[in-house]
This record gives sequence, C-alpha cells and structure tokens, in this order.
Amino acid sequence: MLTRSPDRTLADQLAERFAERIHARLLPAGARLPSVRECARQQGVSAHTVVTAYDKLLAQGLVLAQPQRGFYVRDLGQKTPSSLAGQALTAIKNDAAGNTLQSAVQAGRACGSRINATALIRGMFHHPSARPQPGAGVLPLAWLQEARFLPAAVRKVAASDALQEGSFSYGEPMGDAGLRQVLAQRLGDLQIPAAAEQIITTLGATQALDIISRALLRAGDPVLVEEPGWSVEFARLDALGMRVLPVPRGPDGPDLAVMARLCELHAPKLFVSVSVLHNPTGHSLSPASAHRILQLAQQHDFYIAEDDTYGHIAPAHATRLAALDGLQRTLYVSGFAKILAPNWRIGYLAAPAHLVERLLDTKLLSTLTTPALLEKALALCIAQGQLRRHGERIRQQLAQARARSVQLALEAGCRFAAEPAGMFGWVDTGVDTDALAQRMLDEGYLIAPGSLFHATREPRTLMRINFGTTQEPGFWHTWKKMVKNG
Amino acid sequence: MLTRSPDRTLADQLAERFAERIHARLLPAGARLPSVRECARQQGVSAHTVVTAYDKLLAQGLVLAQPQRGFYVRDLGQKTPSSLAGQALTAIKNDAAGNTLQSAVQAGRACGSRINATALIRGMFHHPSARPQPGAGVLPLAWLQEARFLPAAVRKVAASDALQEGSFSYGEPMGDAGLRQVLAQRLGDLQIPAAAEQIITTLGATQALDIISRALLRAGDPVLVEEPGWSVEFARLDALGMRVLPVPRGPDGPDLAVMARLCELHAPKLFVSVSVLHNPTGHSLSPASAHRILQLAQQHDFYIAEDDTYGHIAPAHATRLAALDGLQRTLYVSGFAKILAPNWRIGYLAAPAHLVERLLDTKLLSTLTTPALLEKALALCIAQGQLRRHGERIRQQLAQARARSVQLALEAGCRFAAEPAGMFGWVDTGVDTDALAQRMLDEGYLIAPGSLFHATREPRTLMRINFGTTQEPGFWHTWKKMVKNG
Repeated sequence: MLTRSPDRTLADQLAERFAERIHARLLPAGARLPSVRECARQQGVSAHTVVTAYDKLLAQGLVLAQPQRGFYVRDLGQKTPSSLAGQALTAIKNDAAGNTLQSAVQAGRACGSRINATALIRGMFHHPSARPQPGAGVLPLAWLQEARFLPAAVRKVAASDALQEGSFSYGEPMGDAGLRQVLAQRLGDLQIPAAAEQIITTLGATQALDIISRALLRAGDPVLVEEPGWSVEFARLDALGMRVLPVPRGPDGPDLAVMARLCELHAPKLFVSVSVLHNPTGHSLSPASAHRILQLAQQHDFYIAEDDTYGHIAPAHATRLAALDGLQRTLYVSGFAKILAPNWRIGYLAAPAHLVERLLDTKLLSTLTTPALLEKALALCIAQGQLRRHGERIRQQLAQARARSVQLALEAGCRFAAEPAGMFGWVDTGVDTDALAQRMLDEGYLIAPGSLFHATREPRTLMRINFGTTQEPGFWHTWKKMVKNG
Repeated sequence: MLTRSPDRTLADQLAERFAERIHARLLPAGARLPSVRECARQQGVSAHTVVTAYDKLLAQGLVLAQPQRGFYVRDLGQKTPSSLAGQALTAIKNDAAGNTLQSAVQAGRACGSRINATALIRGMFHHPSARPQPGAGVLPLAWLQEARFLPAAVRKVAASDALQEGSFSYGEPMGDAGLRQVLAQRLGDLQIPAAAEQIITTLGATQALDIISRALLRAGDPVLVEEPGWSVEFARLDALGMRVLPVPRGPDGPDLAVMARLCELHAPKLFVSVSVLHNPTGHSLSPASAHRILQLAQQHDFYIAEDDTYGHIAPAHATRLAALDGLQRTLYVSGFAKILAPNWRIGYLAAPAHLVERLLDTKLLSTLTTPALLEKALALCIAQGQLRRHGERIRQQLAQARARSVQLALEAGCRFAAEPAGMFGWVDTGVDTDALAQRMLDEGYLIAPGSLFHATREPRTLMRINFGTTQEPGFWHTWKKMVKNG
C-alpha cells in the first residue's frame, strides 16, 4: 500500500516498490511496466506521481524507455543489458493450450535463447507478507515443523562418534554409507533395484540434476524437457550451454509423437522428466507411456534423468521409469526438501553402475563431499521410521488442504487444466497471470504465473497454486477482487 | 605385501592390488604397468605369476595390451576408452624445471586435451594404511580434533531457534547472515573491503571456484592457471570445456612475461591464482607482482579468482590481490576445511558488487542454498574467538612439524625446489616420482608425484609433501629404501 507520509513521497514509495521487485526478479528483465495511466489508476495516484517514479527508475538504470512503447526492465545480471528483450521477442511463440507437433518442433529449434527463470527460485525466498504464499514451492512451515524428531536426531549425532566422522575428515565421496544403505532399501520398496554403491548423495535434488547434466553432456548438446515444467531446470541447462527441447506434457506423460520427431531431428542426449506428480500439472506417467519412452531412449540412445522430487507425497504404486528400466538408461533423482528439513539440502541420485564413477568425479569437482553430519542425522530419522510416519501425516494434511483449495478455486471462477493431484494445482484463470502477479504482489501475495513454467516467457492465463497454501478463503477473496478490478 | 596363502594365489592378490588402484585412480588412465620382469623383481614373484595377474586385468577390461610396448590402464570413466592415452601423447611436453616462454605458450595452446586429475582428489580419500600420508592435502586428524569447541557449537545451535531457521525453510540464498557478517570482519582484518552483501557462502572453497567459473565463463573460454598448481582446478575447468593456459609459477608469483604473452595471444577471461602459500610450492605473491598482475587484468580485461585456501595458516601481512584491488576485478575465495571441520564444507567468495547477482544465480542453479545449521555453528566458533586461537595453535604445530620434516627430507637426499613455507613442501627427489608412487603404495604410503600438479601428466622428479604428515622418520626410511631398490 502506498501511504501519504511526510518522510517519503508517493513517487519515492512507488519507485522503491518497483526497484525491489526488479532486484528480486519478480519483475523480470524485458518485462514492461504498466502504462502511466494504468499504473495511476491501479495505485490511486496521479499520472505525475507515476512519471516521477518511472524517471527515478530510469535514473537508477533499472529500466529502459522505448519511445511510443513504454518502460522495460533492464537485464541487470547479464553482460549485455539489452540482449534478453531482443531474444525474447525473436523466440518462436509456443502456446501450451494448443500445442501442435509443428509448433513444438519449431520451439525446440528456437529455445537456445537465454532463459531468465531464476525469477522462480528468487520467488521461493521472497516473502511479500506473512500470509501463506500460493506461488511457493514449499509446504506450510507449520507442517514441516511437526517433524519434532529432527532436533533429537541432530543432538544424538552431535553427541556421538558421528560428529567426529562427520566433521574432522572430508567424509566419503559417495556420501554417508549408512544413509546410502537406507536409501537403497527405500528404492527397493519402489521396485528400483539400486545397490548402495549406485547411490551418490548430493546437496539436494538440485545438485543431483546438476551433476547429471555436467557428467553426461557437453555444451551444445540437445536435451529434452517437459513443457510446462520446472523452469529452473531449463535455466540450469541453458546456463550450461545446452539446447533445451521442450516436449508438451500431458496427463499420461510427454507427447510421444513430438518426442519421437525431436529425437529424429536433434538426436538428444538426455530427457529430464518429473514422471510422478509432475510440477506444475500434478500429472503422473502411465505405464504405457513409460514403456514407450524407454523404447525411444533405447532406439535413439539417450539417457533419462527421472526427477522424483515429489515421490514422498505420491502413491507407492506410481509408475517410475527407473523401476521399469532397472536403472539401465534411467538415472533416478530425489531428495527430502519437500517434506523434511529443506535447508539440510540432502538429495541423492541412483545411477547405472557404469556411470557411477563419472558422476562421482563431477560431484568431487563441483563440491568435493557433502556434509555427513546432516546425512547421518537423516539416516537416523529414516531408520527409526520417523520419516515414514511424518510422510503419512503430510500426505493426509495435503489431501485435506487440496480438497478445500480446489473448492475455493472453482468458486473463484478458475478451472483446473489438469486433474488436481499432489502438491500443485495447474489452474486456468482466464486472465493474464503475468499482469495479475504484479497486482497480487501489491496485496502481499506471491503467485506463480504460467509463463514461469515455459521455456519461452509469454503471458498466459495459467497459474500454479500450492494446495498447502491456498486453502484459506483470504487469498481467493483478494484474487477475485483483483481480477474484477484488473 | 603379497603372501602365500591356500585361499588366494599370488597372481590373484597381485591382480586385485592393481585393480584396486585402477579403480581408485592411483593408477590413472593411460599409465603403463611395470614390465613383467620389473614387476616380478619388485614383488619377489615369478614372471609367470605376473603374466597371470596381467591376463586377469586384461579379462576384466581394466588394462589394454599394446604389442611390443606393454600394458596400459584403460580410461574407465569416459565414453571413448582409448582417447585419453592418445591425447596425452599428442600434448606438447612442458618441463617445469626448464620452462621457457616459448614452451609455456605452446603448452597453453595444447592444453585443450582432457585432464584426468581427479586422481588427486581420489587420493585424498584413499588410506592405504593407518600411517600419516605424505601425499595428503589435510593436516593430521589429531590436530583438527583439538578443535574441542565444535561439538558444543553444534549442540548449542541444535538446541536453539537456529535449528528451526537452519532446517525447516530453505534458508538465505547468500548464506547465513550471521556468518557473512563475521566473514566481512575477517576480510576487513586482511584489508579486503567486503560488505556482508558481497559475500556468498558455498559448499567449501571448491564450490566457490566452481560457481565463479560457471558464472563468468562460457565453454571454450581461455583461462590462465598457475603451473605447477592445484590440478583439480585444471580438471574442473577442463570438464566445463574451458581452455586451460598454464603460466609458470615462481617465488614472486606467475611468470609475468609468459602471462603478458598469453594475454595477447588468447585474451583470457579469468586468472585463477593461489597467491598466498601456493599449492604445491608454498610460494607467496610479492607486492610488485600483485601490482603488475592487476595492471594486466585491467589492460586485457580479465577477472581474477584468488584462492586463499591456505589463508588461515599464512602470515597476516601476506600480499593479497583482493586487498590491493579492493575487490574490483578480483573475486576472493576461501574456506575452513584446512584447519576446521573439512566435512562441514563451508567456504565462501567475496565479489565485486556488480557480479554478486550473477554469482548468486549460479549458486541457486547448482545447489540452491547451503546448510545454515553448520554455518551458524561456525559463525559461533568465529565470533567467540575459538577459531582464531585454534588457528594459532595449528600454525605453531605446523612450524614445528615443518622444521622436522625439512631436516628429514634433506637427510633423505631430497632438495627443496621452493623455500619451505606453509603446509606443503615442493621437493626435488632426483628420481621418477610417478614410478616411485606405485612402489610406495606397496609399502602403505600415498605420495603426491609432481605430475599431478601439471596440466600435462608426465613423469617428474618432483613431489609434494605435507609437512604435517612427513615429520616421522618412518616414511623417510621407507623412501630411502625404495629409491635405492628402484
């Protein structure tokens, strides 16, 4: 809220608000500020105030003025400040709703342009208010805090020989042996045949995916990803110089016709997939799709990185590529950040035996080892069954929250673009969610517009909601008000 | 030792020993096994036993037989098993002892070949016996264990709100604010003007160097490194697709004439330097060299990554590029692994303000955040002065060990190729240290042959010793015996 004050003018307040968002990437490089007239109306201030505020942003080098077209956010993080906007304009448009084979293949060709999707991660750390954040990728803090066994596990480890082992030497390159042993058992429960010697612990699933990309790919290599999808993965691959080839993701899995065609045209080296409770749609892979994907992998000689980040909140019988494939061409990735201690940053990968040495080299070159103290504490929580019980509790809470949230979303005039499941809802709002994201921020809500889940940023009517943080009517009331006042 | 036993034949034992070393990279890809006759003599077995053992290795796919030339270790980690040996053969030879401008420049041109220097890191985790390991890069466990304040710090953090903060949310992207504050003070003491907002915590100095390479470079970019130098850095840059340009490192710093020439020829983007207590030589940069390096950086527009890993054991007045430069073109990197809790993996970088966002993006893409729980415990140890006192103790122990170790090395017929200082001695042994490394392993000692510190692996008479682990006469007795029996 802008408020009249003797200390700071309304223009100062407005300029500061925009500056803060630009720095936090909530207004990404290339984004257009609202027109002076529009902004004045939205904020209830004079056009003169808006012009003064925009001039300040211009003087600070945060925006560029384009004659007749308005003000655009500069690219602060790149060497060439103006390149992004230009590239974004030349990128081929690709519509998630009406994806055809042709447009997907064209998008695949054009996706070499730099993706500035770190906005999404920055958003994870941005708390515009104390309210539950619908755009967040984490479950409510209160749910995670119910893991009351964590402090005891840390203290137990800190009081034992494990502190010595987990402190004074570099630790085991592959990760704590005890943890890898219990992980092997967990994977066995999921029908994934991984010996402890095929498991490498990592700094979250994030590092696992990073290590796989670096170990298996060279700059310029083509990589298949799912669209919509976790754009931080797109950004990582792009930053490593890979060619990102999006494949439309449907209820049963990736569009197999598009995928086959991309394989023929580009000979990709890797396919990165969230097979179970896909982010953002909540879709889970069907057995028939899984089988066909593995056939394609065999035929076109590529590896698959299966990101099972949401595995802990999924049904045990869900279809996983690594289980069908027996870890032949599939590298399995998961972690604990979604249900337990996100800041402990414990993830892991399980890989075909012949790739383990190469992956381990990459881990050693990038971070050497990972902190064994926390890995030992986690192993304790798993071995004692505490994590399993905690996971059950979280799944129940999430199921209840999802029911409430779906009800409220439908009442607010939204439609689900995918059957609600898991942690995220993929909602068609009927309005431009990029524009609305800025208005919702004014009200203290961070939302995740659909454009963040596409390799090419363009305004979309879709939005990802976190079922854990959208079960209160407050957000939806504000939502309806903003849509109405658009 | 090979011992006659009813269970395992001598050939089996010999084959297993070689297999173990090949897997641990202590016999790197491309290395030649001793001739059958030589091996039989060294091990005191028949030629038939050696032939049988080598046949087993051949059948296991661990070695390749080259007619008339002998047996060579296969490259297990790479897709193309035979490429490395070939590349290594075509790489231009470069002699550390007699480096001329011409040969260094030629070496710079040729160093695009893949470097398999992960042998050195693997060695860090290989304990061929319970004896102190002269090749190790860590100080004796007993010295580090004197940090008796560590368990208390962990317990204190685990019992406080810090456990909540350092567990249940993702934590701060830049790293724990309290730790960054005390690091800023420490840097101030070193005359390096870094605000807490310019400091990013990382998973060890390793990740700091990795983040810098990834944020500032693109595949194919030329990078200046010091030779001899920390070959894990060479390997990391090489794995990222960079062109590694070695500059000979002398007592005052890099060879400035070679450096200037490489700048003109290749327009490097980055210079990676261990300015203080350089690894492996122990050399520290002179003020005049520092000034000239910064002039070159200005003139040829490159950044400098100053790796101050050994800063805690260096004199406070040592010349640091980041101090002269005021963090304009220099990115400062350090960590705590050498004197405190290596497995906590806490490092950091301090960067020019305009690069911070780009570096932070790279951290987020590669590992998201780092574990705050351990960062908070470390901050406590620093703030309470425990780390400073511990550092003083370590420096005293090291000075005493160094005096003893130097004496023993000289008595063993070695000569110091660099004035002994800091943690490592750079010793000219007069014999081929690659070959001797294998013989010493038979006796339970891991040594670090000079070839590991060069961008092109070739047998050298140099060896790096750790002063902390070579102060007992036992190692040197064995050393003399092996040299004599060569």
